[in-house]
Amino acid sequence: MTIGRVFLVGAGPGDPDLITRKGLRLLRSADVVIYDRLIPRQLLDETHPKAELINAGKAPSRHRLSQAAINALIIDRALAGRDVLRLKGGDPFVFGRGGEEALECHRCGIPFEVVPGVSSAFAVPAYAGIPLTQRHISSAFTVLSGHEIAGSVNYAALARLGGTIVILMGVKQLPNITAKLLLAGMPSDTPAAVIEWGATARQRTITGRLENIAAAARENAIRPPAITVLGEVVRLRDEGIAWVDLLPQLADIA
Amino acid sequence: MTIGRVFLVGAGPGDPDLITRKGLRLLRSADVVIYDRLIPRQLLDETHPKAELINAGKAPSRHRLSQAAINALIIDRALAGRDVLRLKGGDPFVFGRGGEEALECHRCGIPFEVVPGVSSAFAVPAYAGIPLTQRHISSAFTVLSGHEIAGSVNYAALARLGGTIVILMGVKQLPNITAKLLLAGMPSDTPAAVIEWGATARQRTITGRLENIAAAARENAIRPPAITVLGEVVRLRDEGIAWVDLLPQLADIA
Repeated sequence: MTIGRVFLVGAGPGDPDLITRKGLRLLRSADVVIYDRLIPRQLLDETHPKAELINAGKAPSRHRLSQAAINALIIDRALAGRDVLRLKGGDPFVFGRGGEEALECHRCGIPFEVVPGVSSAFAVPAYAGIPLTQRHISSAFTVLSGHEIAGSVNYAALARLGGTIVILMGVKQLPNITAKLLLAGMPSDTPAAVIEWGATARQRTITGRLENIAAAARENAIRPPAITVLGEVVRLRDEGIAWVDLLPQLADIA
Repeated sequence: MTIGRVFLVGAGPGDPDLITRKGLRLLRSADVVIYDRLIPRQLLDETHPKAELINAGKAPSRHRLSQAAINALIIDRALAGRDVLRLKGGDPFVFGRGGEEALECHRCGIPFEVVPGVSSAFAVPAYAGIPLTQRHISSAFTVLSGHEIAGSVNYAALARLGGTIVILMGVKQLPNITAKLLLAGMPSDTPAAVIEWGATARQRTITGRLENIAAAARENAIRPPAITVLGEVVRLRDEGIAWVDLLPQLADIA
């Protein structure tokens, strides 16, 4: 039997209109679709009527498939001769653990392709009216995961680097992260924003400064998924780039 | 007369199959398309037959429109009642100067939307088999522009930060940038890659270490556009993630 192919596909940041042309075409033809949490329902509606759909990521507090189990599923279905589409929020190689799945395919001799997606790291700030770079304001940005940030980050270097900082999925860690950045000397009045459910109809943005953004997130009951942006570019939102807020029809995007 | 709308659209990293569904739909209907350098010809072929196409970015050594002139063109056409699509390589808000155009629209009272695109910052490394993050290897990445890096970067902080570093469009500056990172104490054996014409049929990847990557790029006559990646994740390419190299049919993508 011919073995199947594996496609590691980024679904984009929430708005189902931001999937790529290639990702959509593959989604419509794949035999098996293994999808993560936070994938818009509208994208799953585009799958082939006979496709096998597998939910690999339930809510954090409930059972979810381990990465090893997901890898095994991908390999099992591909070895059975089926084309497998692994659908991930954002981009598969930006905190999507696509690298692990790619290596597993390689180890098992299964052909695979990566289909990059629009990463939430910059698209969610964009939907909140915040460009990560802007001439004379920010010429660099750093992206970290709040889930992984605890031990592995050099806060002294991060606090001094300059440019924009984006923290993905770090709501719970936000008081801890901001305290460490303040301690490392990052200016307490650095503009800050937290964006909840970005690029969806539920998008909500809270702004403040490094010194009070964690408290503001708590007071406003911000819940995951949320993305934090630190840096002068946050000001641009109020200077006129908050385009989603000006276009009420976009509230239906997801 | 009704004024037109402006759409700041990311075209993706080179492969025309990576434009978003929303970007493609707008491209097919816009009255005016103002496009940058490095936009795949195939995307311009998708524009409306009656659309006005304006090339805003010729080769670096030749005449190109200033940002002020581009802003003025966008505003002029929108005030004339036409829907304007501003098509940018990668993402409009990641070194795409979309923020400046958005602010100009705001100042002139013209409604605009941002359509994020797949950024070259992570998609070009992905096409070279390099995920920017990988569990136990890299949990953060920093993106800088080689054009802007000279004065504004804290090299001491960058050298100590950890995680992956991506330098966009920095071929000419590469000897200067790597020398400063070495001087700042970044390990000389940090894996490094330079990717020329990423996500196109002309894609070429050179690998080495921080200490010799600038020389390797020179010896191999790497020319812009090119992206440099520094960090342990570069090793994953040779460990089995170099998927484009394994799929010769992808050579036709652009």
